[in-house]
Amino acid sequence: MHGIKLAAKRDENHRTLIRVKDVSIGEGFVVIAGPCSVENEVQTIKTAIHVKEAGADMLRGGVFKPRTSPYSFQGLGLKGLKILAKAREVTGLPIVTEVMDPRDVMWIAEYVDVLQIGTRNMQNFSLLKEVGRAGKPVLLKRGMNSTLSEWLNCAEYILAEGNPDVILCERGIRTFETYTRNTLDLSIVPSVKEVSHLPIIVDPSHATGRLSLIEPMSFAALAAGADGIIVEVHCNPCEALCDKDQSMPPEMFLEMMRRLKRLHSCMGRALEVNINEVH
Amino acid sequence: MHGIKLAAKRDENHRTLIRVKDVSIGEGFVVIAGPCSVENEVQTIKTAIHVKEAGADMLRGGVFKPRTSPYSFQGLGLKGLKILAKAREVTGLPIVTEVMDPRDVMWIAEYVDVLQIGTRNMQNFSLLKEVGRAGKPVLLKRGMNSTLSEWLNCAEYILAEGNPDVILCERGIRTFETYTRNTLDLSIVPSVKEVSHLPIIVDPSHATGRLSLIEPMSFAALAAGADGIIVEVHCNPCEALCDKDQSMPPEMFLEMMRRLKRLHSCMGRALEVNINEVH
Amino acid sequence: MHGIKLAAKRDENHRTLIRVKDVSIGEGFVVIAGPCSVENEVQTIKTAIHVKEAGADMLRGGVFKPRTSPYSFQGLGLKGLKILAKAREVTGLPIVTEVMDPRDVMWIAEYVDVLQIGTRNMQNFSLLKEVGRAGKPVLLKRGMNSTLSEWLNCAEYILAEGNPDVILCERGIRTFETYTRNTLDLSIVPSVKEVSHLPIIVDPSHATGRLSLIEPMSFAALAAGADGIIVEVHCNPCEALCDKDQSMPPEMFLEMMRRLKRLHSCMGRALEVNINEVH
Amino acid sequence: MHGIKLAAKRDENHRTLIRVKDVSIGEGFVVIAGPCSVENEVQTIKTAIHVKEAGADMLRGGVFKPRTSPYSFQGLGLKGLKILAKAREVTGLPIVTEVMDPRDVMWIAEYVDVLQIGTRNMQNFSLLKEVGRAGKPVLLKRGMNSTLSEWLNCAEYILAEGNPDVILCERGIRTFETYTRNTLDLSIVPSVKEVSHLPIIVDPSHATGRLSLIEPMSFAALAAGADGIIVEVHCNPCEALCDKDQSMPPEMFLEMMRRLKRLHSCMGRALEVNINEVH
Repeated sequence: MHGIKLAAKRDENHRTLIRVKDVSIGEGFVVIAGPCSVENEVQTIKTAIHVKEAGADMLRGGVFKPRTSPYSFQGLGLKGLKILAKAREVTGLPIVTEVMDPRDVMWIAEYVDVLQIGTRNMQNFSLLKEVGRAGKPVLLKRGMNSTLSEWLNCAEYILAEGNPDVILCERGIRTFETYTRNTLDLSIVPSVKEVSHLPIIVDPSHATGRLSLIEPMSFAALAAGADGIIVEVHCNPCEALCDKDQSMPPEMFLEMMRRLKRLHSCMGRALEVNINEVH
Repeated sequence: MHGIKLAAKRDENHRTLIRVKDVSIGEGFVVIAGPCSVENEVQTIKTAIHVKEAGADMLRGGVFKPRTSPYSFQGLGLKGLKILAKAREVTGLPIVTEVMDPRDVMWIAEYVDVLQIGTRNMQNFSLLKEVGRAGKPVLLKRGMNSTLSEWLNCAEYILAEGNPDVILCERGIRTFETYTRNTLDLSIVPSVKEVSHLPIIVDPSHATGRLSLIEPMSFAALAAGADGIIVEVHCNPCEALCDKDQSMPPEMFLEMMRRLKRLHSCMGRALEVNINEVH
Repeated sequence: MHGIKLAAKRDENHRTLIRVKDVSIGEGFVVIAGPCSVENEVQTIKTAIHVKEAGADMLRGGVFKPRTSPYSFQGLGLKGLKILAKAREVTGLPIVTEVMDPRDVMWIAEYVDVLQIGTRNMQNFSLLKEVGRAGKPVLLKRGMNSTLSEWLNCAEYILAEGNPDVILCERGIRTFETYTRNTLDLSIVPSVKEVSHLPIIVDPSHATGRLSLIEPMSFAALAAGADGIIVEVHCNPCEALCDKDQSMPPEMFLEMMRRLKRLHSCMGRALEVNINEVH
Repeated sequence: MHGIKLAAKRDENHRTLIRVKDVSIGEGFVVIAGPCSVENEVQTIKTAIHVKEAGADMLRGGVFKPRTSPYSFQGLGLKGLKILAKAREVTGLPIVTEVMDPRDVMWIAEYVDVLQIGTRNMQNFSLLKEVGRAGKPVLLKRGMNSTLSEWLNCAEYILAEGNPDVILCERGIRTFETYTRNTLDLSIVPSVKEVSHLPIIVDPSHATGRLSLIEPMSFAALAAGADGIIVEVHCNPCEALCDKDQSMPPEMFLEMMRRLKRLHSCMGRALEVNINEVH
């Protein structure tokens, strides 16, 4: 693929495994869950405990929010990071949060375990270079209109700065379909596996924007060979400050996790391939 | 959904089961397979026997081909239909073929078991009305740029003429991604299930245009809740007159069918839902 | 351009001029105007007289309407054709109407001066072949998602049947912009001129779906080198059965025509090119 | 339009005029021209003199280049800025250049007259806020997949920081057409004028990616009501480090300028509207 060097597979079996504390991304099916935004301590800790108990591997939560309008809630910033850190302390879950400004990368990297680059910033090259030097794994979301080639070139920006730990995340692309918020492109999963050694996870929450579609698309992501999912869970979706229509309540998430585990385990046997256990 | 009457679910459990000889579409996971084009008798019968032995439920084969250029191979027409009918005689597989012209519907309906409407003709309203009166089930492909609402309105055109047997088929939509030929929109599967009682199958061959992606996307289609797939298989892909890059050779198809069956069977147990057996 | 033979320019100066009664398409700036649908005799004749007086060259009016829903108004059919023919008798304006079914082409061709292929039928190859044999000029609208290459290949289908008189019509393509109904692609105008000898006109009504944008986009079409426009005009837009938001009232159309003529005349002088007079 | 406050028109006649030295943007037809990249002093000064003599109002030139691949030429940085400043000294033309990193805004603002936000950074909210505080006019390019509403919300980010001087720039959107690099959306010009008081210019070079289409699309932009254009001109296009296929040689630019001026002047008379003189 044009321009790709470090992001390209060296050979058929070349795969990168990324360690985030006890979690390995790239060999099992990892579940990252949590609220769209960190709103306050109670909401965040409560949600974190729920997702931990349901079996999630990592906690997500936004503290800097890229919002279409300058007048929308922009996130809690540093205060939110401290709440996330506390949630990690309580649950032991590693935390992932989005960074939007190259000036913030270094100090945010002190607080979190994984730095997320959002879809609108996929081609924010200054930001990519900065997270390439931050010493923490990076979760790189696909631009909502970008091609595989453009996306892997953005991973290349990070890798070229010396950071080998890039987790790709498909989060839906813009199409003319209006029933869903975006269109989840699951064929990108085996496509990435063909050309790159980097792990790829899927975000069914942003991709569909519909609570009822998150579970079937998570099953489909697993079957397509994804290395995991990232899901919006909120202890009280009705009161969520953003994305309330797609935030899963804890009981629904718990039930989905049960079914995902059973599906994952049977798939390994059925396909006689080395699908790793949910750790 | 706007404008949908007959295509809409009456209640939560409303599902339509379509019988095509011994095959039921809408309760199990149906596999329709065969060549893009009927090229000659040997190729067609040979491929038909292969897909039958591998466990396919129905045979597909084009005899009228909608081609971008008027100078490309346009299909064998009536001669091709006779070959398809012979393949059905040999294998017992029901046959499905595309119709493109309202003037041809009635006599083609004499030969085949299912009439297919291709993606370019999804909004060919004269054709839709005609197949609505033809007394045979219709496989209605999604327009490569159409929304769910537009698609279901096209199904409504057929249903409104008195034909209750419409099978929807997702075949990929046009996006900016160039790695795949189109982008398979699997979220349309559970979306259709939410608003309509009609069965929906998936075409991973046209959607991806890449041999290597057909299997993972078939697994994903199954996991997303699709009622089946339609796959291009050719007894000798290198010599195919069209779509040679995405035509599966028989051994590859056989292996995929084995894995699909095991996956299908374990999924029913794992998800504790009423996923029907591959019949 | 791939696959194009008869639609391709033989040399730099190769241009096709299409005669429709007294109107030449391909040398001046032609204006085709009239209602979206022929609703009744009074509305049609009244509108026809208005557009004639304002200086339009041809009358448009739909009698077979391709509608997303089977339950929407589908057009008056033969009755509508007779009304159109009467409007021609009264005003002397040649008439253009859309055909949707290959079975209707021959008898509709008896009534009208130009046969229109709508955007949804651009790749209805049976229909293209039929109008290629009908002995009347064809106005071929661009598919709302089609490329220049696909479009010219559709013109090729018509030309290959022996009909040399194809008028291309850009009518907006589907994009993510929602302020306008579609996005008028004016760069297709000089692009067509680079590769083909066929005339091209522009439909600012369907492209924008906004009354206020029709005039500026008509000026821009003229400046981009288009051979004309096709505009929706209705003697009483509030009562129109379809497209009422984009139908121009007669006074507005009259004023636009005045300005278009002045602009057209000055442009010829300013650019010192052979822009033809509005005839 | 949702979320727009400061970018919205207060009343029908509300228009913002932006002063950049002697140039007024928003009342005449402004031409900004220059090389895609500042490559060296000779190329830049030579091109600057050419465009000045041809009648351009401002000089453009990239010194920080947002490139898909990290291994492509990334621009000369500070050295390039000094060359641009020298070109301004020689020609008197105000200079505009792109900024990509919020950390660079303040010092780049010392050198240039207008700060440009590129299409990939339209929703780089940190950068928008920073240029909102930089005390220099901002040229805000439309995201290649963004809607009018998203675009004006990005202008709102800048305005909300206290900077009233935002020039919008349409540069083509991504569509399925491949003949042109992107699709120039000229209907956005009168659309912007309907809802906002901000001036809007058009970039026919990036939009079309074809030298032959720049002139007709510039004429069309003028006719659609744009406040100006920004064009890539290079003293020696064959040797350009980027965008060589769309860079205009000086003689071609000179000829286009002559025709643009005549067209602009006659249009004012023809349309009897207050189209301002090319100053």
